[in-house]
Amino acid sequence: MIVRNKPRIWELAFALRGSVLTHIAAPLLSLMAIAAAAVWIEQRFHPLPEVEAAPFTVFGIALSLFLGFRNNAAYDRWWEARRLWGGLLSDLRNLAREAEIFVRDEAPRREMLEVALVFLHLLKGSLRRQEHDPEVRAQANDLLDVANPPDAALDRLGRLIAAALERGRIDGFGARTLSARLSSMALQQAGCERIAGTPLPYVYSLLIYRTTYLYCLLLPLALIGPAGWLTPLFVGVAAYVFLGLAEVSEELSQPFGDHVNALPLDAICRAAEISLASHLGRPAPPPILPRNYHLT
Amino acid sequence: MIVRNKPRIWELAFALRGSVLTHIAAPLLSLMAIAAAAVWIEQRFHPLPEVEAAPFTVFGIALSLFLGFRNNAAYDRWWEARRLWGGLLSDLRNLAREAEIFVRDEAPRREMLEVALVFLHLLKGSLRRQEHDPEVRAQANDLLDVANPPDAALDRLGRLIAAALERGRIDGFGARTLSARLSSMALQQAGCERIAGTPLPYVYSLLIYRTTYLYCLLLPLALIGPAGWLTPLFVGVAAYVFLGLAEVSEELSQPFGDHVNALPLDAICRAAEISLASHLGRPAPPPILPRNYHLT
Amino acid sequence: MIVRNKPRIWELAFALRGSVLTHIAAPLLSLMAIAAAAVWIEQRFHPLPEVEAAPFTVFGIALSLFLGFRNNAAYDRWWEARRLWGGLLSDLRNLAREAEIFVRDEAPRREMLEVALVFLHLLKGSLRRQEHDPEVRAQANDLLDVANPPDAALDRLGRLIAAALERGRIDGFGARTLSARLSSMALQQAGCERIAGTPLPYVYSLLIYRTTYLYCLLLPLALIGPAGWLTPLFVGVAAYVFLGLAEVSEELSQPFGDHVNALPLDAICRAAEISLASHLGRPAPPPILPRNYHLT
Amino acid sequence: MIVRNKPRIWELAFALRGSVLTHIAAPLLSLMAIAAAAVWIEQRFHPLPEVEAAPFTVFGIALSLFLGFRNNAAYDRWWEARRLWGGLLSDLRNLAREAEIFVRDEAPRREMLEVALVFLHLLKGSLRRQEHDPEVRAQANDLLDVANPPDAALDRLGRLIAAALERGRIDGFGARTLSARLSSMALQQAGCERIAGTPLPYVYSLLIYRTTYLYCLLLPLALIGPAGWLTPLFVGVAAYVFLGLAEVSEELSQPFGDHVNALPLDAICRAAEISLASHLGRPAPPPILPRNYHLT
Amino acid sequence: MIVRNKPRIWELAFALRGSVLTHIAAPLLSLMAIAAAAVWIEQRFHPLPEVEAAPFTVFGIALSLFLGFRNNAAYDRWWEARRLWGGLLSDLRNLAREAEIFVRDEAPRREMLEVALVFLHLLKGSLRRQEHDPEVRAQANDLLDVANPPDAALDRLGRLIAAALERGRIDGFGARTLSARLSSMALQQAGCERIAGTPLPYVYSLLIYRTTYLYCLLLPLALIGPAGWLTPLFVGVAAYVFLGLAEVSEELSQPFGDHVNALPLDAICRAAEISLASHLGRPAPPPILPRNYHLT
Repeated sequence: MIVRNKPRIWELAFALRGSVLTHIAAPLLSLMAIAAAAVWIEQRFHPLPEVEAAPFTVFGIALSLFLGFRNNAAYDRWWEARRLWGGLLSDLRNLAREAEIFVRDEAPRREMLEVALVFLHLLKGSLRRQEHDPEVRAQANDLLDVANPPDAALDRLGRLIAAALERGRIDGFGARTLSARLSSMALQQAGCERIAGTPLPYVYSLLIYRTTYLYCLLLPLALIGPAGWLTPLFVGVAAYVFLGLAEVSEELSQPFGDHVNALPLDAICRAAEISLASHLGRPAPPPILPRNYHLT
Repeated sequence: MIVRNKPRIWELAFALRGSVLTHIAAPLLSLMAIAAAAVWIEQRFHPLPEVEAAPFTVFGIALSLFLGFRNNAAYDRWWEARRLWGGLLSDLRNLAREAEIFVRDEAPRREMLEVALVFLHLLKGSLRRQEHDPEVRAQANDLLDVANPPDAALDRLGRLIAAALERGRIDGFGARTLSARLSSMALQQAGCERIAGTPLPYVYSLLIYRTTYLYCLLLPLALIGPAGWLTPLFVGVAAYVFLGLAEVSEELSQPFGDHVNALPLDAICRAAEISLASHLGRPAPPPILPRNYHLT
Repeated sequence: MIVRNKPRIWELAFALRGSVLTHIAAPLLSLMAIAAAAVWIEQRFHPLPEVEAAPFTVFGIALSLFLGFRNNAAYDRWWEARRLWGGLLSDLRNLAREAEIFVRDEAPRREMLEVALVFLHLLKGSLRRQEHDPEVRAQANDLLDVANPPDAALDRLGRLIAAALERGRIDGFGARTLSARLSSMALQQAGCERIAGTPLPYVYSLLIYRTTYLYCLLLPLALIGPAGWLTPLFVGVAAYVFLGLAEVSEELSQPFGDHVNALPLDAICRAAEISLASHLGRPAPPPILPRNYHLT
Repeated sequence: MIVRNKPRIWELAFALRGSVLTHIAAPLLSLMAIAAAAVWIEQRFHPLPEVEAAPFTVFGIALSLFLGFRNNAAYDRWWEARRLWGGLLSDLRNLAREAEIFVRDEAPRREMLEVALVFLHLLKGSLRRQEHDPEVRAQANDLLDVANPPDAALDRLGRLIAAALERGRIDGFGARTLSARLSSMALQQAGCERIAGTPLPYVYSLLIYRTTYLYCLLLPLALIGPAGWLTPLFVGVAAYVFLGLAEVSEELSQPFGDHVNALPLDAICRAAEISLASHLGRPAPPPILPRNYHLT
Repeated sequence: MIVRNKPRIWELAFALRGSVLTHIAAPLLSLMAIAAAAVWIEQRFHPLPEVEAAPFTVFGIALSLFLGFRNNAAYDRWWEARRLWGGLLSDLRNLAREAEIFVRDEAPRREMLEVALVFLHLLKGSLRRQEHDPEVRAQANDLLDVANPPDAALDRLGRLIAAALERGRIDGFGARTLSARLSSMALQQAGCERIAGTPLPYVYSLLIYRTTYLYCLLLPLALIGPAGWLTPLFVGVAAYVFLGLAEVSEELSQPFGDHVNALPLDAICRAAEISLASHLGRPAPPPILPRNYHLT
């Protein structure tokens, strides 16, 4: 995630980090070149058929609405994912406090919190489809061979609660409280898996990219007459707005991806470690800070 | 569901799988033929009445807004259905863990989980209005004769909990926890039945398809003058955008249908089987993977 | 509710059932007649003042946005009402299962379910402001004299729970579970009463209908010049789109009304009876099916 | 709140009650007069600079979008407030039933319900910033001196529950159920105070009213040429649409105000009294009906 | 937060407090100066290339939609933050009442409420990234050295509950009720931290500001012909609408910032102190009132 204030005037002109310009440079320049070629052909050889601007108005507005819809859906996914991880952070903190209230012994309490932290790291790894950190691998080793490691971590947490209940370390109230906490964590996990595993319908991407390219390819027909050699500039602006927004939506719709707009899961995991440190009797690690405005 | 990354440039031009082009090809070509016929009549015989583009701008924008509304509603249904199945997956996992915490014996625990899995498969079958798999039929045989098989499966699960309470296998805390889980599953089931049984109001479909066809039929009146033989192309583009979106909305509004954009319920049922395998003492089956980008 | 698949091509042209055409035929034809009269006056007697199309573009887009807003709000009411009845169906099923888990005797259990079914029928009747069915009247006779019959039915259900607790038929866990179910039913009831009793603000209807009529009355001024005798056609199309959507919104905003787009409460009540039949030891009645695509 | 069916055709032309026309008459007529003056100056003395309609199209659409946003936010506040009061009504009914289930004596039960009714009336009074009714003042006299009377009423209800628990009139299950009900009432109260105390950001009002007036003042520049003496009419229509919607949003954003579109809190309080009457052993008062279509 | 009624007519013309005019004056005047320079060059030296208005219509509408989206997202953040603080206020009031019901002694009850108030102040301070008030520093001194002071305050509250349970001051029902309250407070805290720590994606800001400046810089090309020396005025209006909305969105998206539209956390903290005063046996402090319409 890029953590940066409102862009200043010179950043508007030059900032590339966090911008989509680098991603859409190739199609942008191609479309501008095609527009330039059209002007050149028109002026050098043969007049192209000219079209009034009005059909492009409708076309452009329809396109804006559909891009707007897709962007909305993408942002909602991104923000829901952030909300789910905020809920997980709060779940871990609450688990620590509820364990302190309801679990009578230090040892099983700590074990539960350790497993909960491993769960969080495993969830991060599996959402990002990354190798897990060596430290996590060490703690979680027998959890890594299964199909769904974070789910297995929650199973282990469940078995710890079951054992504590059986040995009388918690009573019925405690068991109900802790198992409700566990099921809240599982619900957030299922929400994250839903977002990671269910992309925005592919048919929207096809429809929108096809329409955008058609629009930018046909646009010179309407502009050559009134705008002449300014045509490539206008085509460039239109392509920048429409392809730029399509690209941003693409990125934000995958909040667990590996692009700069992805959610800072490392920082949230660290925040959980900091909050649980005092419950585990450890010194709190330092928070993760953005590097070059980029928080991972 | 189509599981595929952002379309590449050549896919944009040629991809048909997951596209709506095949569904709307017939009306698209008909409308283009009518437009071509209009141009031919105009140029060969008699000038048609010509209309300025401005009324079509308003008309087109109104149409875009209504299509946008219907598309929003359709996508919300699709995403809510996905959310409900994510909730069911999480419910099954939580049921397994809660049974481990609160139910004192292995046998009733396993029986509950088996019934829960049968419920999930029966729900999938009844939402899709499909024959159930033979394996499911075998396990659920006396549940298939009733009016609402998944509801009957939950009834059976309820009776298992009642029996466990009566025989002292669970205490009050456990009964309350498990019955809350059961009612959460029933709520998600009712949500799925709501989406499957209540289509988007038919009156919208009539209004939108009628308006779209009217628009595409009248459009040549505005385009013949300025665009000449490009008219069929522009009519084709407009029809592609409007009919395409109407068709996508139609499909997504039925998330349990049998089209390629339907939700991957098979894969979600399998994910539940994988998660419950260790609780049932079975080896986990392999996950279902997309075939030719299509996940069922 | 109309239960029908995507309209086929000939249905688009001719379907009237479920369409709004019959409701808006009178104003539609009047507006077209006025437009025709304007063309006749213009061509026969005296040129009318002509106006460019541009102000109508803004006016039309503003109108589309406001109609779109009202339509959104109306659809949300319709869908929320459907959601509430889905919740009630799930509540009744859960009540049956919870009674089986927590209530020790058959007789009080059945009595609770009977009262819950009466509640559902009374709620349906009072939302629709209809006479209750004779069968319901027979079961609910002393509940009909009060100001709010469904609320009185829930009061009776509450008294049954209180009696069961006092006589030791349920314990504290059961009382808490059943009273939570009761309060969930009451919440859904209050939601339905809210939708039935609070129409969309009247001021929107006035603003939107006034603006729509103004638009359609002034539109000929912009169209007579470019469109001539096609003016009434275009006015008809505009009136169809705008009045049609206004009328649809009007109907959907009253999901408990007596029009064809109203919610199928009879069918949902029957679904509840089917689900509760096995708990009451009765044969399940047949489901209600749509007649001529219309489900009541 | 205005309770009235779809406006008939003559109401569209003449209805003033519930309309915003009376509120915006002064600016509307002023803007029309300015437009008329502009036409007069143009035709009598000196041509004014003329501007094409296109910039006004963009300007008008942007304005429509911003008004649409503000209207949406205002309607959401209104509907959320209605939802909160529906929740309070349901809370009071549930409190009555839960008291019947869990509280062993008649006297403390009735006392709780009386305090809950006083809470509702005090909340109504403080949201509307009105004098309380004399009857309420009599019952609530020592609650009126504090900073937040409804909060103090809930404090009293809490103390009644605490006393009942201490004296063994309720057990732990009952205390938990009733205190959960209490906290639900407090949450709805905080929601109402949020809406009443946090207006829509003032900066939006400034931005939107300024833009609307600018638009209506500049509009004659675009219309004088094509529309001549129809200019004031068109300016009037634009001002009616934009100022009308701004005014409606203003009213609906304050659902507890003293205008005709405010929520009918008197009627909801009465509905609560009717529902609680049988629990209090009193005859139910008559419901409050709309007078001249106006429900308070 | 600015607490002020609907702007009157003279406020529209002159109000600066709460307006964005002061924030966008510099770019606004620069863009108008550039437009004036373009007119001067055009008329004095050399005709600039002229462009029809139609491409600017599409461009402007697209821009309006994207600004509208960002504005929506920003307002949602602001309103969600307000909702979270309303929830916290209600949590503190409920904590006080639940403590009165379930905690048997005065001393631990008061201690809990004191810690809860400290939590609220610490949360306010850390969201605003401000120095804490000296009074809060005094009460919270050992909580200030940790990484997350409000989280540490909740930990302390958790330990108070644990101690009360161990010493028999509360029973299981009480422990469960109070720990649920604690976890509700933690959830709201995590929500606030989410909003404070996760800005709107930077890529939107870049895209929108870049597009807005491009639009305002290119706009003279379309206006010089028809509007002449009115061009700077129209550019100014467009820049006011678009930059104004962008700036408002920027501010509202940071509801815990130090601008006049930030949420009035001081006033909400004071409202909590007022509500808790009677439970703590203290006189209630006076509420915080707006100064010069500004509530902090």
